[in-house]
Amino acid sequence: MVFVQIREAKEGDCGNILRLIRELAEFEKLSDQVKISEEDLRADGFGENPFYHCLVAESLPGPGESQEPCVVGYGLYYFIYSTWKGRNVYLEDIYVKPEYQGQGIGSKIIKKVAEVALDKGCSQFRLSVLDWNKRAMDLYKALGAQDLTEAEGWHSFRFEGEFRHSERISTAKGLPEGKKSWGEYS
Amino acid sequence: MVFVQIREAKEGDCGNILRLIRELAEFEKLSDQVKISEEDLRADGFGENPFYHCLVAESLPGPGESQEPCVVGYGLYYFIYSTWKGRNVYLEDIYVKPEYQGQGIGSKIIKKVAEVALDKGCSQFRLSVLDWNKRAMDLYKALGAQDLTEAEGWHSFRFEGEFRHSERISTAKGLPEGKKSWGEYS
Repeated sequence: MVFVQIREAKEGDCGNILRLIRELAEFEKLSDQVKISEEDLRADGFGENPFYHCLVAESLPGPGESQEPCVVGYGLYYFIYSTWKGRNVYLEDIYVKPEYQGQGIGSKIIKKVAEVALDKGCSQFRLSVLDWNKRAMDLYKALGAQDLTEAEGWHSFRFEGEFRHSERISTAKGLPEGKKSWGEYS
Repeated sequence: MVFVQIREAKEGDCGNILRLIRELAEFEKLSDQVKISEEDLRADGFGENPFYHCLVAESLPGPGESQEPCVVGYGLYYFIYSTWKGRNVYLEDIYVKPEYQGQGIGSKIIKKVAEVALDKGCSQFRLSVLDWNKRAMDLYKALGAQDLTEAEGWHSFRFEGEFRHSERISTAKGLPEGKKSWGEYS
């Protein structure tokens, strides 16, 4: 029998985490967007002021079994700030490998993130999900989450390379020297 | 004539920022959700490891005019993390008082946030907007942002007091002692 424990990620997990990040992006049909490297993950998550925190779900062999421990899921989160409620947590990614789904591992990760949030004085936590991922949406709703896009009409916007097409931004003065527009920098 | 400058917020601006947070929430028809205090804003934004950063738009009187400088808008942001692109900025709130709108102050705040993001090695920044706020949506699109909810189907979810209604979470072991559910804590 295989046991799964949820624990804090260590720097040595970054290779496994990156593999799971790519699996999740593939499932989301957005894998062309993954530009991050294992080095980035090491530098950004395990320095003095980490940009993110990560939990991993690790399968452990039962007594007498020879299987190696294996990272089968992860939850990556960071602290954000609500101007209505103050300190807050954002769960950027949550993923469990397909062959380990249906065992409550995702719920355990969410519960652990909720504990961290409580301990840090946060009154809520947020996440985003693709509208066609009904299974995830149903799980979050069953666990008590509210779909704010549905309920209140919130849309997510992103500024990226497209910045270069905006005359109002790209011709504005004040960008760092040599960086004429957002797009040219990225 | 009135000049408007964009500058970093100081701790003494928190009272004015809170007034604008409330004005924005009122405009968003969600003012019952604002629970934050001026003290929270001071403690969370101006300590050693601030949870957020804030820009204010300040109107300055012209030469010979007696009007006091006045905070007429703000942009509140923090650093987040993308598992696809790495370091990232999130613009939680952007607001300009109605009588100062239409002068490009909002665009200036966005430009300043873009500069900060560039300086910190971020390749993008994100924000959220209500779907009925066409004016804001049109501005962000004109400035080059992409509506990810429209384009890719991202929905925002929030776990909050509703947690208490989830048997799977509230009966799970491991919550901090004396905190039986997420809901009871908040």
